[in-house]
Amino acid sequence: MKVFLDNNASTRVDDAVLEAMTPFFTEIISPPSSEYGNSFGVEAQEALSNAREIIANKLNVDTSEIIFTSGQAESNNTALKGFALANEKSDSKLILASAVSHSTVMDPLKSLVKHHGFELELIEVNKEGFIKHDHLRQLLKKKPLLVTIPHGNVEIGTIEDINIIANICHENDVKLHVDMTYSFCKIETDASVVDMATIASHLIHGPKGVGALYLRKKQRLRPLIDGGFQENRKRAGTENIPGIVGFAEAVKQFTPEVISKITELRDYTQELFNKNLTEFSITGAKDKNKRLPGHFSAVISYVEGESILLYLDMLNFMVATGSACSSKQLKASHVLSAIGLPTEISHGSIRLGLSKYNEKEQLDEFIVQLGQIVERLRAMSPVDQDFMREWKEMKENGEYTEEDHHHHDDDESEE
Amino acid sequence: MKVFLDNNASTRVDDAVLEAMTPFFTEIISPPSSEYGNSFGVEAQEALSNAREIIANKLNVDTSEIIFTSGQAESNNTALKGFALANEKSDSKLILASAVSHSTVMDPLKSLVKHHGFELELIEVNKEGFIKHDHLRQLLKKKPLLVTIPHGNVEIGTIEDINIIANICHENDVKLHVDMTYSFCKIETDASVVDMATIASHLIHGPKGVGALYLRKKQRLRPLIDGGFQENRKRAGTENIPGIVGFAEAVKQFTPEVISKITELRDYTQELFNKNLTEFSITGAKDKNKRLPGHFSAVISYVEGESILLYLDMLNFMVATGSACSSKQLKASHVLSAIGLPTEISHGSIRLGLSKYNEKEQLDEFIVQLGQIVERLRAMSPVDQDFMREWKEMKENGEYTEEDHHHHDDDESEE
Repeated sequence: MKVFLDNNASTRVDDAVLEAMTPFFTEIISPPSSEYGNSFGVEAQEALSNAREIIANKLNVDTSEIIFTSGQAESNNTALKGFALANEKSDSKLILASAVSHSTVMDPLKSLVKHHGFELELIEVNKEGFIKHDHLRQLLKKKPLLVTIPHGNVEIGTIEDINIIANICHENDVKLHVDMTYSFCKIETDASVVDMATIASHLIHGPKGVGALYLRKKQRLRPLIDGGFQENRKRAGTENIPGIVGFAEAVKQFTPEVISKITELRDYTQELFNKNLTEFSITGAKDKNKRLPGHFSAVISYVEGESILLYLDMLNFMVATGSACSSKQLKASHVLSAIGLPTEISHGSIRLGLSKYNEKEQLDEFIVQLGQIVERLRAMSPVDQDFMREWKEMKENGEYTEEDHHHHDDDESEE
Repeated sequence: MKVFLDNNASTRVDDAVLEAMTPFFTEIISPPSSEYGNSFGVEAQEALSNAREIIANKLNVDTSEIIFTSGQAESNNTALKGFALANEKSDSKLILASAVSHSTVMDPLKSLVKHHGFELELIEVNKEGFIKHDHLRQLLKKKPLLVTIPHGNVEIGTIEDINIIANICHENDVKLHVDMTYSFCKIETDASVVDMATIASHLIHGPKGVGALYLRKKQRLRPLIDGGFQENRKRAGTENIPGIVGFAEAVKQFTPEVISKITELRDYTQELFNKNLTEFSITGAKDKNKRLPGHFSAVISYVEGESILLYLDMLNFMVATGSACSSKQLKASHVLSAIGLPTEISHGSIRLGLSKYNEKEQLDEFIVQLGQIVERLRAMSPVDQDFMREWKEMKENGEYTEEDHHHHDDDESEE
């Protein structure tokens, strides 16, 4: 039996979600767009309105402020390119992004810099992954066009206080976009305090290929996908009704009980790590209540996350790592670099995303296997023991560098 | 029992398609991107490769030339904006589009004109909806950057000969994009003769929210959605594996028998119209073999398509119209204008899209109802009888105007 512990990458679709979607595959065929006093499109139209209401309510925004998209990547690209290009004649061309933003935020921003004359500055984060409010305030003096931050960080789980950050931005008359992909439904959120927010379905037991963008009323935006009246002319294309219905059902199924369960599983994981492993550090916010429920991440000394993953895979456990070797980019996670972890240390990163389909028994078995794997790997560790001793001392003295280790690549996406 | 005869808007998902998708919702959770020698992503990776191969084979292109997207609108926007912006420093800023292109082609082109200094010229079409090759050749002397045409037209069914048009473009060293959304699987096509092609899943009994772009090797393209290594860095985002698997299964299910059946249903519809209705003209190519199989469209004199739709709806039949009143744009179809139909005539348009789930018995019942509705509407027709008499004469004398009636709107998509 395979045990999937990587629910921040993707999740199992809830049976109730699949059930809610099914009639929209095989019975309710007509697009809602056909509903011009026509009875064939009525059910799809009602389903679309209903889904929009569920999602708007969850974010505490108006239904007219929800644009359905194909997921996180499209929502982030629409928000950032759409806002920047709609304001390209403004005085400012500067955009500020948290140094721990997701690649679907970083890459559209790099495209705006490369092709449209925008400027990007990264807001520094502290060791816990929170942006430094002082640095944000300092950068805001440059009168940027937009600020973008993640709400809950996918790699280290840190949850930003968006109320405080929205206040800082708005005091300076600057708009704020927040990527809520990993926090949506897991952290109670009033998105109406920000100007744009990204959410996605596939991380809350909804289908892949569906997401949404919250766009505050009267906010200018140049659509990424032109060609129709759908989504208030902000996003063309025949509406993915089964997907949208599934997304909304997933929101309904993400009850307080689910949050309690995944929080408990996370706490249990933390206990098991403390009891069974030596020489590791939990990454992200020190206060576990300021980390995503269901999220647990750590760096384990003297081992490679990649090797851990391979061994765990043989034993049918799936987790994630920010280790360089595991990513197709072949470089250390920019998030782990940004919180000041030397590459040697971030190589030992491991990350669990726990869902309602996981059980404590799975974690009991997992920690036994992980303990043995770490022991075995350390016995044959190729990692420089001198460096590790030094790092241990630095950490004990609270001295490790927080310098930026961001690798700004020059990936040529146009070939 | 409702009878859906609008299969060029959307289709019922095939049971085999839903069955193929289901395990990817609830069992195979891990994204293929996780497949770095990791067994959890293997099934998704294999499913993705397999789907890509099925679709590439169907188009006679290489698997590396297929980029999965969220559907027609995204594929068309990616092709047109992506190609134009990747070549924005080229000498030419001119793009040529068939006057009967879809809105998801027209609108991104208008955005390129409005925001990026491109120029758009429309290639005239004849009464049958084919682009005039002479006009194309004439426009090609202006050394445009790109030409875009639909393969099969959604409103009038006309199928362009892409081999000839590709030759004309390539002789002039100009690239060709073809929107194959409505012809894919219905017309055997060698897409490798063109440079880019758009296809979509939801018109062939696959799920909504999935499509693809064929992009010829080494063709430059600026991605619409940045942020990841997926789809060869051309389209970021967690792959919609269930949707992609469903898309490929739909291709497999679209057998020659299906094509025969819908062609037969179309021919039968044409016979029924000829036997039971007076004063109507079939729109699109005169040669029915040069119209999409399963497609039947006509303009019926002295009536409003919108009124026909309302009556048919009460009787549980769903068809489409290009009538002004039926579209949210409140103007006559640009396609019907482009083939030279006066607005008064295009108001009487009606369009059927027939699928393998339709039966002759449904059409028998449909034509009886349609005959009665047309008779009733004509009895109380508000349409100018003088104009209609005049139009009839013009038509009989083959005189009706082919002047462009395109309404270029100034819709402000940035608010």
